[in-house]
Amino acid sequence: MWGQSCGDLYSLGDLQPDPSSALHTRHGRVRGRGSRGEAREELQGCHHLLLSSTMKDTACPQSLRPSPPRLSQQIGDKVFTTNTVTGGYAEYTVASQDTVFPLLGNLDFAQGASIGIPYFTAYRALIHKAQATPGETVLIHGASGGVGVAACQMARAYGLKVLGTAGSESGMKVVLGNGAHKVFNHRETDYVDKIKEYVGEEGVNVIIEMLANVNLSKDLQLLSQGGRVIIVGSRGPIEINPRDTMKKEASIIGVSLYSSSKVELQQSLAALIAGNESCWLRPVIGPRYQLKDAAQAHRDIIDSQGASGKMVLMMS
Amino acid sequence: MWGQSCGDLYSLGDLQPDPSSALHTRHGRVRGRGSRGEAREELQGCHHLLLSSTMKDTACPQSLRPSPPRLSQQIGDKVFTTNTVTGGYAEYTVASQDTVFPLLGNLDFAQGASIGIPYFTAYRALIHKAQATPGETVLIHGASGGVGVAACQMARAYGLKVLGTAGSESGMKVVLGNGAHKVFNHRETDYVDKIKEYVGEEGVNVIIEMLANVNLSKDLQLLSQGGRVIIVGSRGPIEINPRDTMKKEASIIGVSLYSSSKVELQQSLAALIAGNESCWLRPVIGPRYQLKDAAQAHRDIIDSQGASGKMVLMMS
Repeated sequence: MWGQSCGDLYSLGDLQPDPSSALHTRHGRVRGRGSRGEAREELQGCHHLLLSSTMKDTACPQSLRPSPPRLSQQIGDKVFTTNTVTGGYAEYTVASQDTVFPLLGNLDFAQGASIGIPYFTAYRALIHKAQATPGETVLIHGASGGVGVAACQMARAYGLKVLGTAGSESGMKVVLGNGAHKVFNHRETDYVDKIKEYVGEEGVNVIIEMLANVNLSKDLQLLSQGGRVIIVGSRGPIEINPRDTMKKEASIIGVSLYSSSKVELQQSLAALIAGNESCWLRPVIGPRYQLKDAAQAHRDIIDSQGASGKMVLMMS
Repeated sequence: MWGQSCGDLYSLGDLQPDPSSALHTRHGRVRGRGSRGEAREELQGCHHLLLSSTMKDTACPQSLRPSPPRLSQQIGDKVFTTNTVTGGYAEYTVASQDTVFPLLGNLDFAQGASIGIPYFTAYRALIHKAQATPGETVLIHGASGGVGVAACQMARAYGLKVLGTAGSESGMKVVLGNGAHKVFNHRETDYVDKIKEYVGEEGVNVIIEMLANVNLSKDLQLLSQGGRVIIVGSRGPIEINPRDTMKKEASIIGVSLYSSSKVELQQSLAALIAGNESCWLRPVIGPRYQLKDAAQAHRDIIDSQGASGKMVLMMS
């Protein structure tokens, strides 16, 4: 699908405008087994908020104060946030001004709700941490979820050779439809050998890793000289051989969006606005849940057999 | 001892000039248990050579060709190398011109033989990889061996807060005498708690790690936000929790001196020449062995109970 006009880009996805006025979302990258404690932690890190056009100023006093010209928000503006003070599973919330941004022009609420964590995290992983450069090869491990799709689109737009993995046929289709040159099924026992064969001796320069407790040791085998594994997600411990980092002078680097400085958030936003203008930023929405079904959404994210776009919680 | 005049700096060590004209050395940082295979690998990575004043030009044709002005070597010059083509356990060897450097002014052969791997590795770890900056705190884990002593001296000279570990009283004395503000005995069961108490909540910015298979998991607990563990040595696998890297956005970075570019080697050399001029570069020599006792030296390095300076193989 990549390379077609903006209008055709997401014919694989369900991108109908959503009528709801406020959305809380989580992203679909969390899958496989994990304790409830781990799941809660993942989900708490993935709250998003779209302030509705009917939002009262008493509900979000900070987020509605005027901010620098380009990013100023007025009461009634459509906005999204990367973080909240009072929590995201609610119709009204409080967010700090520096984490609230205007909803990018042509996106609906469901897509807007998919920007805050996934695209900002993808930018932080790929650019701020991996410092990926055009011509490098990136493997996005778990590419069909919210962060994965964002990373695929971004990496392709920035001139990288993009490999992705997914765990289902529909997920693989999403990955290929969003910028990946090649996709692998990580449920196949020999998929690592297939990646090795595909990239040859040079290896992979950057790996964006959503499930490090399963993949990290194998990741180190796939890396190029000077390669970087960026840890976006992990659900437990794993045994690695530190010597695997030495000869290649490889790096393992953790990512936390909440550690971003204000300047870094503004850099990311500027890049994402440009990505929206030039059509590569197009969130793919996966399963939608009503707020009352949040518990079921949690169970599904733990037991997921493979993501296909970003999961969204609806407010109405 | 730190802060005294150059002449007094190493009163703890044995720095008598050595009469030998060519030395092959290994450094004393390798200790604890390991297979013979691993030990061989360590030692093969630690060969040094001092070309003697009686060296024949037929033996080292490349290394004796004129090179850029500041670094030019003539037949008969005292030099050291960071690598050899034909191996270091011999009286004569061949080395590539870009790995041969003039012996720094006031150093004897034994000290000169301790520069090639330890100081270049310390520079690569601390500056090229960790990008340590003045005011940061560095923990040098295994600070009493060749690389450890070099890292202590360098880090102190560059304005870092220097913590070191050693496994014996004599080793701890060496560490304190070579730049560390504080030393811990890593054979004490609660030494990690003591380090935590010493550095407080801020944690350690950089850890130079000589035995990652034992320490890496604990290292991640000690790190500051944005902290870096630099893997200089490891003898096997270890279980870590990748989540420990995420919240702090910590990095684990492997180091291999042999991956240095020519430009990087020249940068390191320039820094080390300056370090010699300003007196902070003063190699500490540990046990000395005759070449015929190389096998025993290997056994001792495996079974070492704690290093106290760099081990040296003598040619005469």
